[in-house]
Amino acid sequence: MGVAVSVEGETERKPSLEPLVGLVAEDLKAVNQVIIERMDSPVALIPQLASHVVAAGGKRLRPMLTLASARLCGYPGRRHIGLAACVECIHTATLLHDDVVDDSELRRGLASANVVWGNKPSVLVGDFLFSRAFELMVEDGSLRILAILSRASSIIAEGEVSQLVTTNDTETTEADYLAVIRAKTAELFAAACRIGAVVADRPQHEEAALDSYGRNLGIAFQLIDDVLDYSAKQATLGKTVGDDFREGKITLPIVLAFSRGDGAEKAFWRRTLEDLEQEPDDLARAIALLEAHGALAATLERARLYGGKAIAALEPFRPGAERAALIDAVDFCIERAY
Amino acid sequence: MGVAVSVEGETERKPSLEPLVGLVAEDLKAVNQVIIERMDSPVALIPQLASHVVAAGGKRLRPMLTLASARLCGYPGRRHIGLAACVECIHTATLLHDDVVDDSELRRGLASANVVWGNKPSVLVGDFLFSRAFELMVEDGSLRILAILSRASSIIAEGEVSQLVTTNDTETTEADYLAVIRAKTAELFAAACRIGAVVADRPQHEEAALDSYGRNLGIAFQLIDDVLDYSAKQATLGKTVGDDFREGKITLPIVLAFSRGDGAEKAFWRRTLEDLEQEPDDLARAIALLEAHGALAATLERARLYGGKAIAALEPFRPGAERAALIDAVDFCIERAY
Repeated sequence: MGVAVSVEGETERKPSLEPLVGLVAEDLKAVNQVIIERMDSPVALIPQLASHVVAAGGKRLRPMLTLASARLCGYPGRRHIGLAACVECIHTATLLHDDVVDDSELRRGLASANVVWGNKPSVLVGDFLFSRAFELMVEDGSLRILAILSRASSIIAEGEVSQLVTTNDTETTEADYLAVIRAKTAELFAAACRIGAVVADRPQHEEAALDSYGRNLGIAFQLIDDVLDYSAKQATLGKTVGDDFREGKITLPIVLAFSRGDGAEKAFWRRTLEDLEQEPDDLARAIALLEAHGALAATLERARLYGGKAIAALEPFRPGAERAALIDAVDFCIERAY
Repeated sequence: MGVAVSVEGETERKPSLEPLVGLVAEDLKAVNQVIIERMDSPVALIPQLASHVVAAGGKRLRPMLTLASARLCGYPGRRHIGLAACVECIHTATLLHDDVVDDSELRRGLASANVVWGNKPSVLVGDFLFSRAFELMVEDGSLRILAILSRASSIIAEGEVSQLVTTNDTETTEADYLAVIRAKTAELFAAACRIGAVVADRPQHEEAALDSYGRNLGIAFQLIDDVLDYSAKQATLGKTVGDDFREGKITLPIVLAFSRGDGAEKAFWRRTLEDLEQEPDDLARAIALLEAHGALAATLERARLYGGKAIAALEPFRPGAERAALIDAVDFCIERAY
C-alpha cells in the first residue's frame, strides 16, 4: 500500500498535517481559548503548570480530529469547540500523569512539568484538568458523549496500568502490546472522532466509521511513536532518543527483535530491559539489533496496515476537503517516521 | 454548646456513629457491592490495589451521608446506592493520589498502596477509579448530579494544590488554612449530602440545607483530623502521630501556636516546618508548644462551632431517626478527638 497515495481518487500530494490544520484553524483558536479559560484558577500554580503543558502545545491532533470529524458530518453548530477542548484536557491530564509515572524529563522539547515543579503538583493538576474536562462535558449536556468519554478515560487508565505491568517483561507478546496501545492511545483517538458524529446527530454507522478511523489511526500513531524512540529523527521532535529503552518499556520493535534474537541477544534484552542493568553502549547495541532483525521496518509496516484501515473506514463519507484532510493526517502520522 | 446534647429535643445519648450505620446498613452493603463490581478489571493489578484501599474500608462516612440524606428526604428508590458508590470512588481516588503526594506510609492502619505497589500504580489506579465514578454517574443519568460532583472534583483538586503551596509556609493564616480544607475536604461532604436531596427531587432550600450540613461537618471533621495528628489517641486510629509535622503541613493548630509564639518559638517552627530540619525530640517539643498555647483546644473549639452549624442546618427537616443519626454523626466526628 502506498501511503502517500490516498484512496478513491483524491489528488496525490506529500503527506502533511496542513490540510487538517487549515480546515480547523479558526475552530482550534476557539478551542485554545476555552482551554485557557478552563484551566484558570485562583490557585496560581494551576494555570502556571497547566499552561506549561498546554502551551508546549504539540500538534493538538486529538481536538483537531474532533473538529474535523464534526465538520465531515456536516455539523453546523459550536458544541464541537467545547468537546474538542474536553478531549485535549483529558489528553493533557494523561500526559501529566504519564510523565510522573515514566519519570520523563522532556515533553515536546521542554522540561516536563514534573521536572520543573515536582511530581506532586503534576499529579494534582492532572486531576484538576480531568475534573474540568468533565465539567465542560456536563455543560455540553449530552449523556451519550459523557458516556463515550468517561468510558474512554477508564480504558486509558486500564491501558496505562497494563503498560506498567508489561514494562520490564520481555515475555510480552505482540498481542499484549497491541492490547496496551489500543487502550492507552487508540481509545481516545476513537472517542475524539466518534463524538464528532454524535454532536452532528449522525446515524450509528457513521459513528462507528469515525470510531474505526480514530482507533486505527491511534494504533498507527503509537506504533510510529515507538519506532521514533529508537530513531535519529526523534531528536528533531524534541524528545530524547532511547527513553523507552532506559525505562525498560516493551514496545513492538523490542517484542519483534526479542522473538527473532538468539540466546545471547535474549540475554542482552533481559539484562537491559528486565534487570535495567544498562551500560553506556547498550542503547547503540539495542538499535543495531533492532535494525539487524528488521524490527523497526516491521513495526512501520504494521503502522501502515493500521493506517490503511483508518483510511478505508472513511469510505462511507462523501469525498471533499474534510475527508482528504483526515486521510492526509493518517499519511502524515506514518511518514513522520521517515 | 454541649455537643453530646443534640438540639431540638432529640433524646440525649453518647455520640456514636452507630445510629447512622444502623440506618443505612442494608444500603451500604449494596454500595460496597457496586464498588467491588466497578473496580474490577481484566488488568489484575487494578482490583488488587483498589480493593486494598477500599477494603481497608474506613468508616465509609461519605457514602453513608449520601444514603442518609436521601432517606432524610424521603427518597424511596435505589439510585442513591450507585451515587453513594460514586462518592466513595471519588474519595478513594483522592486518597490514592494524596498518599503519593504526601509520601504516606500508613492508611487506616495498613501500609499505603504507594508503599506496597509504588507510586506509579497508585496514580493510575486513582485515575481509573475516578473515571469509573464518572461512568457510574453517567449511568445514573442526572446532569444536575454530574454537575455537582464534577464541580466538587475540580474544587478538591484545587484545594489539594493550595495545600501543597501552603505546606512549609509558616505565614499561612487561619483564613488560608480554612480555604484549603473547605476545598479539599468539605466540598465532597457537601456534595455527598446535597445529591441526597437532588435524587429525591426536593426543593432548592432542602438541597442547600443538606449542602450546608455536609460542608460544616466536613470542616469540623478535618479540624479534628488535624488535632488528632498531634494526639496520643491517633495511634488507636491506625495512623502515625506527627505525619503532618514531618511533612511540614501547616494545619490550624500550627497556625495558632505560631501566631501565639515568641521569637524563639517562631524560629523553631520555621526550622522544623519550613526548612524541614527536624531532630528526634522536635515532635515532642511541637506537641508541648501546641498545648502550652492551647492551640489544640482552640482548634477543637472551632470544630465544635462548625459542628453546631452543621446541626443547625438540619432544622428544616422533620425530626426522626434520620435527622437524629445525622446529628449524632456530627457529635461523633468531634468526640472522637477525646
